[in-house]
Amino acid sequence: MTHAPLRIGLIGAGRIGASHAAVMARRVPEVDLVAVVDARPGAAEAVAGPLGARTEPSPEALFAADDIDAVVIAASSTAHTELIVAAAEAGKHVFCEKPAGMSLEEIDRGRAATAKAGVAFQVGFNRRFAADFRAARDAITAGRIGEVQLMRSLTRDPGTGPADPAAVPAWTIFTQTLIHDFDSLNWLNPGARAVDVMATADALIRPDFRDAGLLDTAIVVIRYDNGAIATAEASFAAAYGYDVRGEVFGSAGMVTAGDGSSTSMRLFDVEGRTAATARGDVELMVDAYTGEFVEFANAVREGRPPSVTGDDARAAFAIAQACIESMQTGLRVRVDQGPTS
Amino acid sequence: MTHAPLRIGLIGAGRIGASHAAVMARRVPEVDLVAVVDARPGAAEAVAGPLGARTEPSPEALFAADDIDAVVIAASSTAHTELIVAAAEAGKHVFCEKPAGMSLEEIDRGRAATAKAGVAFQVGFNRRFAADFRAARDAITAGRIGEVQLMRSLTRDPGTGPADPAAVPAWTIFTQTLIHDFDSLNWLNPGARAVDVMATADALIRPDFRDAGLLDTAIVVIRYDNGAIATAEASFAAAYGYDVRGEVFGSAGMVTAGDGSSTSMRLFDVEGRTAATARGDVELMVDAYTGEFVEFANAVREGRPPSVTGDDARAAFAIAQACIESMQTGLRVRVDQGPTS
Amino acid sequence: MTHAPLRIGLIGAGRIGASHAAVMARRVPEVDLVAVVDARPGAAEAVAGPLGARTEPSPEALFAADDIDAVVIAASSTAHTELIVAAAEAGKHVFCEKPAGMSLEEIDRGRAATAKAGVAFQVGFNRRFAADFRAARDAITAGRIGEVQLMRSLTRDPGTGPADPAAVPAWTIFTQTLIHDFDSLNWLNPGARAVDVMATADALIRPDFRDAGLLDTAIVVIRYDNGAIATAEASFAAAYGYDVRGEVFGSAGMVTAGDGSSTSMRLFDVEGRTAATARGDVELMVDAYTGEFVEFANAVREGRPPSVTGDDARAAFAIAQACIESMQTGLRVRVDQGPTS
Amino acid sequence: MTHAPLRIGLIGAGRIGASHAAVMARRVPEVDLVAVVDARPGAAEAVAGPLGARTEPSPEALFAADDIDAVVIAASSTAHTELIVAAAEAGKHVFCEKPAGMSLEEIDRGRAATAKAGVAFQVGFNRRFAADFRAARDAITAGRIGEVQLMRSLTRDPGTGPADPAAVPAWTIFTQTLIHDFDSLNWLNPGARAVDVMATADALIRPDFRDAGLLDTAIVVIRYDNGAIATAEASFAAAYGYDVRGEVFGSAGMVTAGDGSSTSMRLFDVEGRTAATARGDVELMVDAYTGEFVEFANAVREGRPPSVTGDDARAAFAIAQACIESMQTGLRVRVDQGPTS
Repeated sequence: MTHAPLRIGLIGAGRIGASHAAVMARRVPEVDLVAVVDARPGAAEAVAGPLGARTEPSPEALFAADDIDAVVIAASSTAHTELIVAAAEAGKHVFCEKPAGMSLEEIDRGRAATAKAGVAFQVGFNRRFAADFRAARDAITAGRIGEVQLMRSLTRDPGTGPADPAAVPAWTIFTQTLIHDFDSLNWLNPGARAVDVMATADALIRPDFRDAGLLDTAIVVIRYDNGAIATAEASFAAAYGYDVRGEVFGSAGMVTAGDGSSTSMRLFDVEGRTAATARGDVELMVDAYTGEFVEFANAVREGRPPSVTGDDARAAFAIAQACIESMQTGLRVRVDQGPTS
Repeated sequence: MTHAPLRIGLIGAGRIGASHAAVMARRVPEVDLVAVVDARPGAAEAVAGPLGARTEPSPEALFAADDIDAVVIAASSTAHTELIVAAAEAGKHVFCEKPAGMSLEEIDRGRAATAKAGVAFQVGFNRRFAADFRAARDAITAGRIGEVQLMRSLTRDPGTGPADPAAVPAWTIFTQTLIHDFDSLNWLNPGARAVDVMATADALIRPDFRDAGLLDTAIVVIRYDNGAIATAEASFAAAYGYDVRGEVFGSAGMVTAGDGSSTSMRLFDVEGRTAATARGDVELMVDAYTGEFVEFANAVREGRPPSVTGDDARAAFAIAQACIESMQTGLRVRVDQGPTS
Repeated sequence: MTHAPLRIGLIGAGRIGASHAAVMARRVPEVDLVAVVDARPGAAEAVAGPLGARTEPSPEALFAADDIDAVVIAASSTAHTELIVAAAEAGKHVFCEKPAGMSLEEIDRGRAATAKAGVAFQVGFNRRFAADFRAARDAITAGRIGEVQLMRSLTRDPGTGPADPAAVPAWTIFTQTLIHDFDSLNWLNPGARAVDVMATADALIRPDFRDAGLLDTAIVVIRYDNGAIATAEASFAAAYGYDVRGEVFGSAGMVTAGDGSSTSMRLFDVEGRTAATARGDVELMVDAYTGEFVEFANAVREGRPPSVTGDDARAAFAIAQACIESMQTGLRVRVDQGPTS
Repeated sequence: MTHAPLRIGLIGAGRIGASHAAVMARRVPEVDLVAVVDARPGAAEAVAGPLGARTEPSPEALFAADDIDAVVIAASSTAHTELIVAAAEAGKHVFCEKPAGMSLEEIDRGRAATAKAGVAFQVGFNRRFAADFRAARDAITAGRIGEVQLMRSLTRDPGTGPADPAAVPAWTIFTQTLIHDFDSLNWLNPGARAVDVMATADALIRPDFRDAGLLDTAIVVIRYDNGAIATAEASFAAAYGYDVRGEVFGSAGMVTAGDGSSTSMRLFDVEGRTAATARGDVELMVDAYTGEFVEFANAVREGRPPSVTGDDARAAFAIAQACIESMQTGLRVRVDQGPTS
């Protein structure tokens, strides 16, 4: 490459952190994975070692390192805001996994800190970099479907559900899972803003944890200020794999993104004609993960904001927050879109 | 055929009546289209003539005819109940287009009259006879997807919307359009009953008629007593054709029905790979229409209730009625399931 | 119906004869199945009885019956020509299953006899009535793919192969199976004529019968006088069901027909996303069978030739005959297109 | 990365050379594109500059450079063998675009030279690294389709055909285009060897160049020693884009790879339901190109032969050579499989 790669410090070596590390090291020459931090003994080493990166003992050590330009935050969601603020204050560019905070106030703090420091701030809404979702949006912005009227976005996690339902934080389905769908819907309805929401959710995978407050299945209806009506739907347990889809219907047509299949190979046998489904997010989303890190590196190098920002994080979280209130009241709840800019 | 065909009098020679007449005459030897009635001068003749049927001046004349065993009611919805009751009292079997009445009270009157007369009473929920929906239900009842958790059913009418929006009766989107989806969802969730609904609807195709009360776009969230959460969605104007789909997600998998394409032919050109979409309900549903009339004839001949009955009509209409109340109050509304049987 | 139905006598109550009887009786009011003949004791009764038809002791009895307008011949292929000629001489219209004879000479005798008698003569090339194949041809004749350059047609029979490989007549794969593909290719390349063929065939399903002359797998390359090059492919044993497909590639695009799936239902489970495949020809082709009998009845009533004629039967058989010679010589063989008309 | 990247010198900065350079530089950290050579003034600079590589004046200069471990040959096919031999003698590992030579003798010289030098020798059969083809082969080797009986592989280049048909070297369709299909068929029929071929080819896109010897459309039938019968098909001009597909049918089922669509996005409008098709090889094959360079780097680092070798190049070219003879004689021609090893 003609340009020096963006030197990355990764915070968090859990499942998604390890995936991000591998994608960056193996598919994104635009970045250089320099160091990994994880509080759990051995976790950082396990990720950093095979990829030729070093470990650092703490986020603070990363922030102090001269050979690190930017951090990728894949730590616990509750720690996101403090890490964003500290990284920004140290002059590091910030890529943070969703959600960018646990409240609108937290997200606003991260936005303010990165803005003040003049560093890039990108949030991990990876679907924006998936080829099918991008093609859908391109068709929408090109006017191919006319005015947006009905939308749908869904996320179904692969497998059999939470290993420990009691350990699932309250409202996770809105703040961690559907947050992807809220961003997709916002992005696929260009220029429109969510007005209000009505949430329906339950513990259907593990009804034995309903009384403990588990919500593992949800449908949210969102109304936008251009009249569009959207549903966002999530489940923690899809037996057939990771299912991420979108559908946008307008006055002149419709686009759909996602069909659950992982390749165009088809097997015909006595059962019928079968397409393999993606077993997990890494399998389905590897190109999208690649794309978001390329965008991050390019944005920093070009001195421009990334294409998905803290403002987008706020807009998606505002919907999640309204969902929580809707669940608490059983009513349709207005989305707090903040002061008009 | 070994059995004499069921001799049919058709009431209503409008668009769907004409389609039903043609399907019965051309594809269903189990029935014999004997006579057609329509109040509009010439309408009955136009349908009856080419198919070798006679016309009758009034429904009463049909009911009095000795050579007619059963009536197919495709008249205005507001007339359904009176026609059902009169036909039953004349000893005619009854096939009625949906909805079977304009209120739960009307539907109950039709159910009571047909029960008292001992005649068959079938309602035109044609999706139950579409091959893909049947296959979906077979998979569900065979346990292939486990416990039902999330459902979706949608109806999008082809074209550009109502010719005269001012002439669309209030609540049509619930009582005439989504009634199909309500029945499909009930049927695809065997043994479960709808508990409550939350409706969202608007005039997005013709916003100039919003103030006049038009609702041309809607999403309804329905909760069932087995925990399943469903969405039913409708639009009066799909540019790409008639779109009828279903999706049922359960603890062990998912089934989908409908993909919008009308044949397996694919055209590849500079635009890409294109599948034709069904231009209208008759094109998409002709096999289902055939199936429902075969079922009607078979049920009468075998002296058993049809597989879709007045009870089903009531269950679907109860959801529509709750939607109306939900629109009026902005609240989630309980579905009136009637006295437990 | 306004017109009296075409009164049919069926010759042959085997697998395909029984299917044809049921389709005619249950889905084609344009015809009336009056009588059934089969030499095997009980076979005619088993088919005729449940459908309300009578039996006749012999084809001659059918030909002599005043209440029969036309015959449908689904007897052994070796008997086709004699039956066609006798029926024509008795003034009966003729629908004959493919092949219309066992040699070009036989087919020409049938063509001459029906022409002389002035009766309709239709051959059972059912794919011409399948919706996807029709749509493909419509696109071709509308110029959507430009000049035809490459073609493919295939037939794979469902199951595990011949029950008794020793009983399969020589060259069956060409004269009975690929004959469908030869006609489809001719029809999908409007106005063109086959010039020569090169056949490759073997006993791959049952190699233990190779020395006995079995051919159960074949690929034929056909060159047309408009330059188009086609492959026709067949197998006697497809584990996943009945597979009938076509592909036509031209200077401006491509059309494909057939995708093996029997409905648009999809099942998603741990195996992936599965579409059911058609288990047999009756399941896949029921609408095409319906269509061909409707066409037969309409052609007779309108006093015009059917859309698929003895000329088409000859053109397809000429390719089969060239294949046999190609297998015997190992060479490319010219197709006998007969005297130019 | 923990390992030093494989340092690459690229020979040839034409269309595919430029694509390879970009893929290596942007997606394959396992390699380092160090230098580019191209005889045409400016061509090397145009590719090398934006990617941060230097240019070298000649292949000899590359071979002499100490900081280059391996060469990627994307030069004119007629130069391949000399470059392979010279690179090997200089101790450089070799990745060569297909074909690896213009005759079996040339390919054998390249194989001998690389073997003698103990360097890696990989050939650019990229379909082996495409996800759908890999999944197809995995299913085959896992026994999912039983014994291979019928195969098909095709290549259709996007666009309107050769810009200058007179400049297309003789037999290009076999040695340059179908060579991909010959390798795919060999690879998808594990352990089997091609026995003989029968080729049919013509100038259908540009019939005005037929007399000049152009062949732009071809179908080849190949018989394998396990009985399998294959067709390989090519066209130089597909209006709808780059079309690469495979189909393997066996005693227990079938696999297909490729469906022409470039993403899972679907657009529904008045034309129907449309999937975008891939406009070119770079768009369709970028992941496969990435995969083949990762394999090359890994094979060198691990000191093992690449998964696609000079032996594979020879086996594919032997089929191409037999096709040429088949075109010259009009006969089925035996494939020269060389001395048994």
